[in-house]
Amino acid sequence: MKVVIDCDPGHDDAVAILLAAGHPDVDVLGITTVAGNQTLERVTTNACVAATVAGLRDVPVVAGSNGPLLRRLRIADSIHGESGLDGPAPIEPTVHPAAGHAVDFIIDTVLAQPGEVTLVALGPLTNVAIALRKAPALAQAVDRISIMGGSWTRGNMTPAAEFNVWADPEAAAVVFGAPWDLTMVGLDVTHQALYTDEVAARFEGLASPAARWLGELMAFYRDTNRAVHQMGAPPVHDPCALAAVIDPSIVPTREARVDVETAGTHTAGMTVVDFGRRADAGSHHVGVGLEADAFWSLLANAVAALPLER
Amino acid sequence: MKVVIDCDPGHDDAVAILLAAGHPDVDVLGITTVAGNQTLERVTTNACVAATVAGLRDVPVVAGSNGPLLRRLRIADSIHGESGLDGPAPIEPTVHPAAGHAVDFIIDTVLAQPGEVTLVALGPLTNVAIALRKAPALAQAVDRISIMGGSWTRGNMTPAAEFNVWADPEAAAVVFGAPWDLTMVGLDVTHQALYTDEVAARFEGLASPAARWLGELMAFYRDTNRAVHQMGAPPVHDPCALAAVIDPSIVPTREARVDVETAGTHTAGMTVVDFGRRADAGSHHVGVGLEADAFWSLLANAVAALPLER
Amino acid sequence: MKVVIDCDPGHDDAVAILLAAGHPDVDVLGITTVAGNQTLERVTTNACVAATVAGLRDVPVVAGSNGPLLRRLRIADSIHGESGLDGPAPIEPTVHPAAGHAVDFIIDTVLAQPGEVTLVALGPLTNVAIALRKAPALAQAVDRISIMGGSWTRGNMTPAAEFNVWADPEAAAVVFGAPWDLTMVGLDVTHQALYTDEVAARFEGLASPAARWLGELMAFYRDTNRAVHQMGAPPVHDPCALAAVIDPSIVPTREARVDVETAGTHTAGMTVVDFGRRADAGSHHVGVGLEADAFWSLLANAVAALPLER
Amino acid sequence: MKVVIDCDPGHDDAVAILLAAGHPDVDVLGITTVAGNQTLERVTTNACVAATVAGLRDVPVVAGSNGPLLRRLRIADSIHGESGLDGPAPIEPTVHPAAGHAVDFIIDTVLAQPGEVTLVALGPLTNVAIALRKAPALAQAVDRISIMGGSWTRGNMTPAAEFNVWADPEAAAVVFGAPWDLTMVGLDVTHQALYTDEVAARFEGLASPAARWLGELMAFYRDTNRAVHQMGAPPVHDPCALAAVIDPSIVPTREARVDVETAGTHTAGMTVVDFGRRADAGSHHVGVGLEADAFWSLLANAVAALPLER
Repeated sequence: MKVVIDCDPGHDDAVAILLAAGHPDVDVLGITTVAGNQTLERVTTNACVAATVAGLRDVPVVAGSNGPLLRRLRIADSIHGESGLDGPAPIEPTVHPAAGHAVDFIIDTVLAQPGEVTLVALGPLTNVAIALRKAPALAQAVDRISIMGGSWTRGNMTPAAEFNVWADPEAAAVVFGAPWDLTMVGLDVTHQALYTDEVAARFEGLASPAARWLGELMAFYRDTNRAVHQMGAPPVHDPCALAAVIDPSIVPTREARVDVETAGTHTAGMTVVDFGRRADAGSHHVGVGLEADAFWSLLANAVAALPLER
Repeated sequence: MKVVIDCDPGHDDAVAILLAAGHPDVDVLGITTVAGNQTLERVTTNACVAATVAGLRDVPVVAGSNGPLLRRLRIADSIHGESGLDGPAPIEPTVHPAAGHAVDFIIDTVLAQPGEVTLVALGPLTNVAIALRKAPALAQAVDRISIMGGSWTRGNMTPAAEFNVWADPEAAAVVFGAPWDLTMVGLDVTHQALYTDEVAARFEGLASPAARWLGELMAFYRDTNRAVHQMGAPPVHDPCALAAVIDPSIVPTREARVDVETAGTHTAGMTVVDFGRRADAGSHHVGVGLEADAFWSLLANAVAALPLER
Repeated sequence: MKVVIDCDPGHDDAVAILLAAGHPDVDVLGITTVAGNQTLERVTTNACVAATVAGLRDVPVVAGSNGPLLRRLRIADSIHGESGLDGPAPIEPTVHPAAGHAVDFIIDTVLAQPGEVTLVALGPLTNVAIALRKAPALAQAVDRISIMGGSWTRGNMTPAAEFNVWADPEAAAVVFGAPWDLTMVGLDVTHQALYTDEVAARFEGLASPAARWLGELMAFYRDTNRAVHQMGAPPVHDPCALAAVIDPSIVPTREARVDVETAGTHTAGMTVVDFGRRADAGSHHVGVGLEADAFWSLLANAVAALPLER
Repeated sequence: MKVVIDCDPGHDDAVAILLAAGHPDVDVLGITTVAGNQTLERVTTNACVAATVAGLRDVPVVAGSNGPLLRRLRIADSIHGESGLDGPAPIEPTVHPAAGHAVDFIIDTVLAQPGEVTLVALGPLTNVAIALRKAPALAQAVDRISIMGGSWTRGNMTPAAEFNVWADPEAAAVVFGAPWDLTMVGLDVTHQALYTDEVAARFEGLASPAARWLGELMAFYRDTNRAVHQMGAPPVHDPCALAAVIDPSIVPTREARVDVETAGTHTAGMTVVDFGRRADAGSHHVGVGLEADAFWSLLANAVAALPLER
């Protein structure tokens, strides 16, 4: 399974990169970055750090958009800290950004092997939207796209909107409006991927450098989620969208039409999910639950498979 | 407890009128009508019919707005039928509409006895909004207002919006924005007031004309709700907002700020409920559950107390 | 010609009241007030002052809405000063506000003599919109309505919007959307009613108390218009809408459809005038010019006809 | 003067290409195309045709966006016909589209010679907006940008909006919001560039193939403008924006802040021009008139200088 991961690391993005690197079926063709959880510069550095920890030495990391399509950039430093990956001691990456632009990397990689590449989008959808507008053929050429974003009940940035969609609603509208095989993995799913003490204990038992790093990331991330969202255990959003691709049974879905609100005063960035109009052209697969045990096993096995040194 | 009921009967509005008439603590000062479930003419006739069945011979029924503040009228005949109260054999009302306008009736009644009147709003909020704009002192003079409308998760007219708020979002924005003691009883509450077969059996046992009429109303209403909303048992929305006033323990609430979306392309008429900003000026009481047994007992006792003939 | 003047005095509103009082064909049935140029309290006092100066002792002055339908009140004190009628020495009015509400006065007066009353609306359209919503029959019962508001080129509060429409766009949308005989007298007309030195000299020659008062009002108004709008001579907006009723040849019109923008980020309160869709249901008469000499003569003759003492 | 022309030919775009080709000071580095007056395929063919007639054999013609950033494509075939360049007998182009994408051509060309390239944008601003988002450095690297689009009084597609901005308001918002030296040449300018019979006679006198082709284009364009816009002589919009670059005295400008309305119900695509806020960061040069004689002389001289055969 060939994947391109578009992301804005971000603690949970980093965990998704570990999952991708450690799972035997996943062939990471590239990691592209987009401003979101932090500035483009920082998330690109963080992607390189995560690739370094994950042992993805030959995977290109390509920087992309430094802000949303139409709106100004608003980062999530209250969750992810100054660096975007606060918590562990800083790591000097041995993976470095590749030349080129994320938009072109996505287009060129997908069009070079039609029907074979899965996009996994874990940040604001700016890069993916621009790629679609620059190369409309992308929609048909991709195998599928799995998105961490949105929700069909309530949001986390506002009562109505989830962060990734809220950060660039117009880009999300382009992406959800394109005619491709799209799976939305929203908060209704990811709020079941809670990094509880029991889950933490599993990763502590692995005793590898990657597992230790993951534990340090999660310790910081748990504290900020408690402070900001009053959640006892933090939701590890991004790996869920990759898990939904690796093993669809982990994220059961229903067919629905998803519209992205771009005009609302109080609702901009909301994904409006209509389960009753599933026959429409705009139909997508919307995650409605999570097999949490299977999810954590998938992640733990992947982390356990990572190289013991870097 | 002195109440003015502003409504658009409608099956569940009619049940709310039975509850008001039959409960010993409720003194119905008047029933005002607003276009919503059906046209103004029909809902006014229906209010007279319900008052007749309920034995409210001396309660003024006053017609009000024939459409929303800014938008065009869209009725709910797929749920309530041609008459707005389809199901039972037609009843010739012995209560007739009073002179005057609902807006003035609300203003005059409330201002005449400051701090003593509770508004129970069961339809689109057009009358209440115009009353507030015509007489801003209303907000301080009323005891409280309890509204059937909105939701803090999902809607019923659209994925985002509940019918009453969706029908006149601008009026709802005026009403939720006014500085008064407001309780929102939304779908999250009323979807727990399901008229199941067990509930139906309780009312069948009462064997009074009002109970029989209620049963015939609910039979029609159950069928349309099944067809439109795919719900096994229909939610009896409107009496919940009155029950929340009669016995607050029946509808537990949390403090929240409620904004009404008026501008969204896909979200117009959504109540955006922010539980995390409860200290704001815009704070309201938002129903978060229903003690269903207590609710049905309250209603059954009230219906049982209604006169045996009309 | 029976007229009700709905206004927010305001310097040019006061001049319109002088015109109404002094013109032999105009029978002023009442003056209603609305918050706009200043707060409701101040514009109501000012209406009484203007009625006093104009000798309209028996004309009811009825207060109405204290703010817009949906938006918060924003007054024009940079043009009209602290009192809303700065400039002349304060006058103790001998006319006092009547009981009741402007909305009901408009409804009752028009419905009492169907087809005979002309509404002249010189402020934000809040009262008129609420009257229409409370009594939809108003649209057919009125003879016609003449509005000072809007423009078909550029605005004065924003590049797109004129003050009266900008102050309450939703009310304006209701009023322009109603099926009645409507004349819009916008900035394209009123910016030709410039109170130049030559015009001032005409009024100075009249040497009556009303003419002197008008001159003092205009001196203040000229200075604020210079400061705020960089106009050499100030536009005397409001009397133009009354003049268009008294003598239609003074304000030539074209048929056009007028939509009021309520949703724009930069254009809220703009009147969008489409001369090419004049066959539509929404057709109105839109003023496209001003016969300035005839206008000033009409006004000067009216002021000259006012009583010499008060 | 090195220019890249981004356009959607279109009759007046074609005339602008003739002007660029024939003027001795203009070095056309490339022509990029965008869907607008017709589909991308047709405007790209038409750009090749115009380049062929103009003798621009070595100038790359590079296709770009096939539709707006967020909205669906709506073409102007009522003005430009089925082909987008109806009127003259079809010409088989000897210039053919180059490889690559307009967005990359614009970025690469401008960044390769910082401070030296002028963008002349004659269609919807989709390509330019995507280029800005992909390479934010573009704004500083370009010498200046001159845009045919918008107006500060009234529109042509709607009462409020001019076609190019209306066709892709969100792209226009990006372009007008970027920090670069921007000149807007809107309808207020181009409605003074009327192809009257006197003007036509000048071009008829030139007797070259390009002049003849121009005459045939204008004959068709005059008829459609008469039918659609009821204009006696058609406005030749696009060359004005190039003329403003070649000889700024032809298009006098004022400083103003320009906002693009993207949210309005009736005003989407309007350029809101505020001459009173010229000190703001968003300040642009806005064309306020046209030296028509100088303009037509510039164009006639350029056409006269084109090669006599192709």
